[in-house]
Amino acid sequence: MVFQPQDPDFDQRVRASFARQAFMATIGARIVSVAPGEVVLELAFDQSLTQQHGFLHAGVVAALADNACGFAALSLMQPGAAVMSVEFKINLLAPAAGSIFKAAGRVIRAGRTLTVCSAEVVAADGDREKLVAVMQATMMSVTGRPGLTD
Amino acid sequence: MVFQPQDPDFDQRVRASFARQAFMATIGARIVSVAPGEVVLELAFDQSLTQQHGFLHAGVVAALADNACGFAALSLMQPGAAVMSVEFKINLLAPAAGSIFKAAGRVIRAGRTLTVCSAEVVAADGDREKLVAVMQATMMSVTGRPGLTD
Amino acid sequence: MVFQPQDPDFDQRVRASFARQAFMATIGARIVSVAPGEVVLELAFDQSLTQQHGFLHAGVVAALADNACGFAALSLMQPGAAVMSVEFKINLLAPAAGSIFKAAGRVIRAGRTLTVCSAEVVAADGDREKLVAVMQATMMSVTGRPGLTD
Amino acid sequence: MVFQPQDPDFDQRVRASFARQAFMATIGARIVSVAPGEVVLELAFDQSLTQQHGFLHAGVVAALADNACGFAALSLMQPGAAVMSVEFKINLLAPAAGSIFKAAGRVIRAGRTLTVCSAEVVAADGDREKLVAVMQATMMSVTGRPGLTD
Repeated sequence: MVFQPQDPDFDQRVRASFARQAFMATIGARIVSVAPGEVVLELAFDQSLTQQHGFLHAGVVAALADNACGFAALSLMQPGAAVMSVEFKINLLAPAAGSIFKAAGRVIRAGRTLTVCSAEVVAADGDREKLVAVMQATMMSVTGRPGLTD
Repeated sequence: MVFQPQDPDFDQRVRASFARQAFMATIGARIVSVAPGEVVLELAFDQSLTQQHGFLHAGVVAALADNACGFAALSLMQPGAAVMSVEFKINLLAPAAGSIFKAAGRVIRAGRTLTVCSAEVVAADGDREKLVAVMQATMMSVTGRPGLTD
Repeated sequence: MVFQPQDPDFDQRVRASFARQAFMATIGARIVSVAPGEVVLELAFDQSLTQQHGFLHAGVVAALADNACGFAALSLMQPGAAVMSVEFKINLLAPAAGSIFKAAGRVIRAGRTLTVCSAEVVAADGDREKLVAVMQATMMSVTGRPGLTD
Repeated sequence: MVFQPQDPDFDQRVRASFARQAFMATIGARIVSVAPGEVVLELAFDQSLTQQHGFLHAGVVAALADNACGFAALSLMQPGAAVMSVEFKINLLAPAAGSIFKAAGRVIRAGRTLTVCSAEVVAADGDREKLVAVMQATMMSVTGRPGLTD
């Protein structure tokens, strides 16, 4: 699907909003790419992010996928709007074992208020990639709330 | 619902597994209570865990709720089994603003392989509490995989 | 939770909207009760509604639960608004075997645009009841679209 | 993704199981195509399947998508296993208006016990097609239960 962004500055806008997320810095995530309706994020494995069996915690996988969806949605929103997660659902397909994790979020349908997205998270180890999670999410465009913008 | 734990050491087992989750230490979460089929976790607000508007990141809310579900499920599993998240779905009802966040996870149905759980996350500020998220999740009891136990 | 309906005619409004759903007549569903933020629906088992093993089809279980949620949400909406399902997630806990199926939907949070609900579906056989499904759903209040009202 | 079916008779097996679903006959659904890990179903609009605004009921959309997922999963299961829906989540992207509805389900990951699938439902009117729903679902392979097979 090809989307036409409503905001010509969508790329910078997404990157600036991402940069304001302290939690992304906490876990060491970064933006790989931004396109209209599609955002890819990346995270290096770190022991501080693990669950009890030494894999990346499902909550971290979900945070990365949620953000890939949220910023993919934001890339298509009108200037001044803020993006909020309404809900998301994630299936964890395999233990999140790897050295690098990439979450690719893309917009399935961009509505005036609600945007539906999906995301795939792959775990990479050298040149091997494995799909470890898929997400389906609903994002909301919030307008007219003082101080709330992206 | 009243559940009969299969493992008399369920309380210690849940606490030990939680203690092995490095990510819980990273975000500063702790166990409030463990009962058969019900686990409550708690987290203090910290700026390092925020999204772009200064609220607790949805990924952190999800991690806390996922864990409350997972450990509630683990409390009813047979000795030697490990718990893995199969999938979860979370609705974010309000911005996660507050000083303390509590996630209460409870088992809805404990099957031999799959356990279905729900969780509620409240944000507390002084003596005011607000429901900020609800989750519905599926957990799996994994047995017979060498090295994988809880 | 106690909700104050915005529409004093909420009971009649829910029943009238339900009566316009041809699919509910097709499967033989009926309203058991309507209260502010809570609606219970009922369906008798019929062989025409089964899946391949003779149980009630998951799609029928989902339709009943979705409707219990949707009408629970509608009971709290402002006059003139229409209710639409944004998304729902259902866990099927046990085979839907029984003679009567009851879906109880209740509002968890009623927002201006979005309402989050949950539903439980029980299968009854004589005086035995079994929980067979739980749902978490998001409903939308649609206003200002000509011809679209409930 | 290319999947290798474990059952050489997967095509006939899927069609036979579908034929035993009385509910599919009730709503007039039929199989369009069966391939390893991918099943397409079709349904003609009928007034008896509508919700209160005259669109196809979300429960019918969900039933079709759930089945497309379930039979896609079944196409890869070992001989003798039965398929059961564990859970599914559906986003309704647009009112289900059209004359023909097609649900394409495909397997994302086939495990020994659990299979994760996704489905897309399009509404067609003449040669115009519109995506009206997306689903993410978990299916279970059930073995060793007398009388339960597909």
